[in-house]
Amino acid sequence: MERIYLDNAATTPLDPVVLDAMMPYLTNQFGNPSSIYSYGRESRLAIENARKTVAKILNAHPAEIFFTSGGTESSNTAITAAVRDLGCRHIISSVIEHHATTHTVEYLYHTGEAALSYVKLLPNGHIDLEDLERLLAESEEKCLVTLMHANNEIGNILDIHAVGELCKLYGAIFHSDTVQTVGHFPFDLRNTPVHFITGASHKFHGPKGVGLLYINENVKIKPFVHGGSQERNMRAGTENLYGIVGFAKALELATAHYENDSAYIKGLKIYMMEQLKKHIKGVSFNGDTLGRSLYTVLSVSFPKTEKSEMILFNLDINNICASGGSACTSGADQGSHVIRAINNNPNQVTVRFSFSKSNTKEEIDKVIEQLKDMI
Amino acid sequence: MERIYLDNAATTPLDPVVLDAMMPYLTNQFGNPSSIYSYGRESRLAIENARKTVAKILNAHPAEIFFTSGGTESSNTAITAAVRDLGCRHIISSVIEHHATTHTVEYLYHTGEAALSYVKLLPNGHIDLEDLERLLAESEEKCLVTLMHANNEIGNILDIHAVGELCKLYGAIFHSDTVQTVGHFPFDLRNTPVHFITGASHKFHGPKGVGLLYINENVKIKPFVHGGSQERNMRAGTENLYGIVGFAKALELATAHYENDSAYIKGLKIYMMEQLKKHIKGVSFNGDTLGRSLYTVLSVSFPKTEKSEMILFNLDINNICASGGSACTSGADQGSHVIRAINNNPNQVTVRFSFSKSNTKEEIDKVIEQLKDMI
Repeated sequence: MERIYLDNAATTPLDPVVLDAMMPYLTNQFGNPSSIYSYGRESRLAIENARKTVAKILNAHPAEIFFTSGGTESSNTAITAAVRDLGCRHIISSVIEHHATTHTVEYLYHTGEAALSYVKLLPNGHIDLEDLERLLAESEEKCLVTLMHANNEIGNILDIHAVGELCKLYGAIFHSDTVQTVGHFPFDLRNTPVHFITGASHKFHGPKGVGLLYINENVKIKPFVHGGSQERNMRAGTENLYGIVGFAKALELATAHYENDSAYIKGLKIYMMEQLKKHIKGVSFNGDTLGRSLYTVLSVSFPKTEKSEMILFNLDINNICASGGSACTSGADQGSHVIRAINNNPNQVTVRFSFSKSNTKEEIDKVIEQLKDMI
Repeated sequence: MERIYLDNAATTPLDPVVLDAMMPYLTNQFGNPSSIYSYGRESRLAIENARKTVAKILNAHPAEIFFTSGGTESSNTAITAAVRDLGCRHIISSVIEHHATTHTVEYLYHTGEAALSYVKLLPNGHIDLEDLERLLAESEEKCLVTLMHANNEIGNILDIHAVGELCKLYGAIFHSDTVQTVGHFPFDLRNTPVHFITGASHKFHGPKGVGLLYINENVKIKPFVHGGSQERNMRAGTENLYGIVGFAKALELATAHYENDSAYIKGLKIYMMEQLKKHIKGVSFNGDTLGRSLYTVLSVSFPKTEKSEMILFNLDINNICASGGSACTSGADQGSHVIRAINNNPNQVTVRFSFSKSNTKEEIDKVIEQLKDMI
């Protein structure tokens, strides 16, 4: 059976058009972007053009766009800088963040650099904004609020504007891990009250190993990685030239085809939901699946049986790629901290299916057929 | 005139054989290495094979090899960990290190996390080992010694064994920035008294955006980038799959052809040196050029005249790529901190020429012809 890839929230195939855009920089155009001769300046130009493209799409200023090695480094940079450079002594986060956030805030908590509070969750997995306001109002220290824009496991989307306005009201710094939404939704950063957002192009058919950090022009931080004067002294290290070019091209393509692709992918998600409800008894869905939710992610819980406990194993045997949670945590084998937090039902087995423009209804039909046998 | 690229210490062209090895992972084999299904495990296998290849070549254990986003991140990780996790409260370094080291140790000095001493240099730019021993002996705190294996501007090579033995004697942690030597010289890490070394594959015909950090199995540190459980919890973030595969392939090729390539490149360096002495009056060379020195780097000082002050500009116009110093600092336009430290002669103009297997004697002849006009 041909492989069916339904784990697009973990990573996506590189678009051949993106690879084409990268190829000159993987072959002839290899000059170091920091070299001052014209051959180096050509590489620099490619990077600055990539930066302008990304800035324009996100409606930000090019000076607010920094390229890093990935979403994880970007979140580490933002969170650490908020504490060490911007005076935030109290971090407000949630227990369903990606580990790039959770492990960074825990580190800063354990070193004694910041207090740490977790905001309450509503039953559907959304952030309780009243609790967030209470935490902000009661804090005696300057706060960093770090809440992800869309949850990578259950797909819930945060009201980033509402959170941003609360942060503004209480003088807090706001970082949002937008790794699941950059390249998947339009952004208008000039009109979004956020200080830091992040991105990783491999989540939207771009290359791995390259990330985005948006730093609002009103905040001034020190670099996280020290060294050369790359990225206007904000991120040292020889630039990942082809990665940066690929990031911009992938974002360009994603933006150009957003209307069609998002409608198509949303159709796949809803179709799979309907088919599951029709064919699998006792199935349920995690998060605000049909409300404020990623069109790319469907988190499904199956009743626990001897057979369903083996579901990921059996999907794999049948060449279907889906995951129990985030790829970044799957090595740990402790189950999903997100699912535990919002749905602590030990009698269920949870699988995340996540879609891209490359998937088809036929693939979903095949997966449903297989699932019928497995449950 | 065709481009003559003599700035291989800044970056090197990607070897087409390396790109071939990367291509499957840039196209079909895109699975997230942290995903537990077989398609992800195939990616993981590629990474673990790359790790084994690198470990074997460096004579280290695979568990001591970590992949990062580049040499700069690797040095940041090692230096920061030595201070924060290994109790080093005194850093001993030199003023001719790469900025990845210098700016990291200065940051830790300014935050008050460590004292900072610079070891004296000998007139030829080598580290004064007697002064190093004095600093170690007089220190009342546990020391981190961070000294680069080969200087990227003047090519001087440190006696890494002698420094390592001194560190051992005084209970110091030893980090060496080996970015200019990994992929250029054989390593035998099991028999080298060093705790951390670093590497960047774009310095030896591998991809940009990927680096190596060797952490000796006897030291246990915390991650620098927090998040997922990648790299055995030591470096979070979705792995740069093709970059890692490319790193290993480039190191494999460099090792396989080391004898021939190094002899050939050394021949070019000596040939250029001779031709310069023959044709350019008043030329001199920085560092221990014919002694303990990189075969890839030739640092040349020309007498300062109205014409020679424009030399980098004129080389560029003639499509010859060479640099005034490190690419990582060239954006800063403050001249080379290395040349200032070892040769503070204001009546000279310094150019670094650096060679690779792709260069030829014919290219050098052409450069000499041009230089004759320019000086």
